[in-house]
Amino acid sequence: MRFEELKRGMKASISKRITAEQVDAFAQLSTDYNPLHINEEVAQKSVFHHRVAHGMLVASLFSAVLGTRLPGEGSIYLGQDLRFVAPVFLNDTITAEVEVIELREDKRIVKLATTAINQDGKSVITGTATILVR
Amino acid sequence: MRFEELKRGMKASISKRITAEQVDAFAQLSTDYNPLHINEEVAQKSVFHHRVAHGMLVASLFSAVLGTRLPGEGSIYLGQDLRFVAPVFLNDTITAEVEVIELREDKRIVKLATTAINQDGKSVITGTATILVR
Repeated sequence: MRFEELKRGMKASISKRITAEQVDAFAQLSTDYNPLHINEEVAQKSVFHHRVAHGMLVASLFSAVLGTRLPGEGSIYLGQDLRFVAPVFLNDTITAEVEVIELREDKRIVKLATTAINQDGKSVITGTATILVR
Repeated sequence: MRFEELKRGMKASISKRITAEQVDAFAQLSTDYNPLHINEEVAQKSVFHHRVAHGMLVASLFSAVLGTRLPGEGSIYLGQDLRFVAPVFLNDTITAEVEVIELREDKRIVKLATTAINQDGKSVITGTATILVR
């Protein structure tokens, strides 16, 4: 989308079920083999009681929405702030939503609120993204 | 590592070569099929002139260092701020380093500077992570 087409309040989202296979693949790709993510036995003894998805795997859905939908092609990712506010468990369905909250015309920079919720409507990640639109 | 063992100034890092295969795998996992990342022909016409790795793929190395080395096991990821300050190209070797910069004893929360540099010593991502250590 061109910068001139962006308006405050515009939203886009994608939903995805987070599976054990995806968590295992992300562990391999990131080399984050923290047992909380990949070992159910260890995770059961943790505060979460079950394996949890990597926060960055879930946050990567923001990258997908920003890079392919809003603003979409031409987006250059300048920054992302993330607060991991609740755990994401295997087979949770996560909806990652972005909303335009600020436009800086002079620099063609757009700031978006980024929020991920689970199938129960509970926020799991909050934050903001900063995107340059060429 | 236990919270009591952490000291300001402690550092840990991992290095990884970012390959086309990893970028393709991350595109599939995140559903971020932005052509800048996966299509060399489109990327050549962009400001970057070549395919660039997803920022979140590179940032996932911080998750690996934090979750497996410093603070390591017992880490609960509360937050991560990221500034994508320079592009990462295919076959770049990235070193992701974390350094303890703040300890809040009462809450068992540690703040770490997170910096990724490429093989030329150029910063590609800067930011901070916030971790609860149980």
